[in-house]
Parts: sequence; C-alpha cells; structure tokens
Amino acid sequence: MPVVNLADKFSRFADYWHPRIVGELNGQHVKVAKLLGEFDWHFHADEDELFLVIQGTLTMQLRDGDVTIGAGEFFIVPRGVEHRPVAEEEVHVVLFEPASTFHTGNVVTEKTRESLEWI
Amino acid sequence: MPVVNLADKFSRFADYWHPRIVGELNGQHVKVAKLLGEFDWHFHADEDELFLVIQGTLTMQLRDGDVTIGAGEFFIVPRGVEHRPVAEEEVHVVLFEPASTFHTGNVVTEKTRESLEWI
Repeated sequence: MPVVNLADKFSRFADYWHPRIVGELNGQHVKVAKLLGEFDWHFHADEDELFLVIQGTLTMQLRDGDVTIGAGEFFIVPRGVEHRPVAEEEVHVVLFEPASTFHTGNVVTEKTRESLEWI
Repeated sequence: MPVVNLADKFSRFADYWHPRIVGELNGQHVKVAKLLGEFDWHFHADEDELFLVIQGTLTMQLRDGDVTIGAGEFFIVPRGVEHRPVAEEEVHVVLFEPASTFHTGNVVTEKTRESLEWI
C-alpha cells in the first residue's frame, strides 16, 4: 500500500497519449497521462471516464460542443459519448476508469496500445 | 455533464468529516471533504477507498503504522483494512469509492451521516 506522489509519477515518462497505471481499486484503474496535440474521436460503449487535469488546460471536443477543463478541474465523459481530447499545450491528467477501459475506445489508431503498464 | 472545479466545491462548505458528492461514474462516487482532528477507527468490508490530498497533510493511521499523505499524493485503503484518518491541520481531500460506501464503515459514531448530499 504505497503512497502515490503524482508529480513523481509524471516525472517518470515523457511521451504523450500513453497512459500509465498508478493505482487500482474496486475494479477501477487510476492512470496518469501527458497529452499534447489532438487525439482520435472515440467512445467507450460500457465505461464512463473521468479526466482530472493536474497541469495545463484540456479541451474535450464533444459532438455538440467543446468543454474546457483547467488545472484542478475534472470532467466525466459518460459511456457512449463520442469525445476527442485536444491539448494545445502539454497537459497532465489523472484518469479514473474501469480496468477494462481501452484508451482509444471503439477505434484502433496509431495511438492505440494493446496493454498499459504500471509505473 | 458539468466541469467540476474542486476549489469551487471546497468553498461551498466549512464543516469537517462531512463528505459531499461531486461526481458519479461506473457505480463509483467522487466526493470532497474537509478534515481536521481525528476520525474514528473503521473499515469497509467490501470497498477500497482512495484518498487524494489536495491541501494539507493527512496522516492515515493503520494498525501496523502510520502513512503520511501530502498534497498531490493519494493512498488507497484496501477493503477490510482498519484505518483512522488524522488531520493536525485542515486537510482537503478528494475521495473515490463505490457509491455504496458508508463513510464511517463498520461503525456508527457521532460523525456518522445516514446520507450524503450532492453539491
């Protein structure tokens, strides 16, 4: 049962759109990721997904408009809702979602990773 | 689907040991609470509980030793593990746990609340 220091976890990697797992509870994973640029449009059929911004400002594009999420703010994308994260500057996020969640949801793109590692 | 600003949520209440619900996903609740002083020893038989410290330093007493959780750090108390949060200064925490979680776990004390409200 370690204490997890988020700044320490973010310091351990530099690549974007590659979430790492930093905690697990009740079948859910806590992940950290660095974002820069535009992700792919996707949705998760069976999983709600929480984005907590630690640094920077994240734009969450939705089919009916954009949402802006600043540091110290979170946003929950409900299951089935198409979304596309866009980061004009480097953004650090914490993700809470079921351990089953595949980060590119219903699509497979060049950003898709088959499995995510713990750090 | 609102964006949730944690500082705004913390500004809406002043009492201690009284979590408020600020988000729900996948059967889990996101809660915020202010802590000061000593809570009661308790455990949750079926729920793991995550404490993410936003402000201050939280001591989590466990039967086999204390854990110190600073701002920007989180700690997961596994189900069944007795714990007692102690805050020598005011601490702001985000909790992530199943919606079924009763905040004083297996005990009923003067701090027990039958139900928690959304803010």
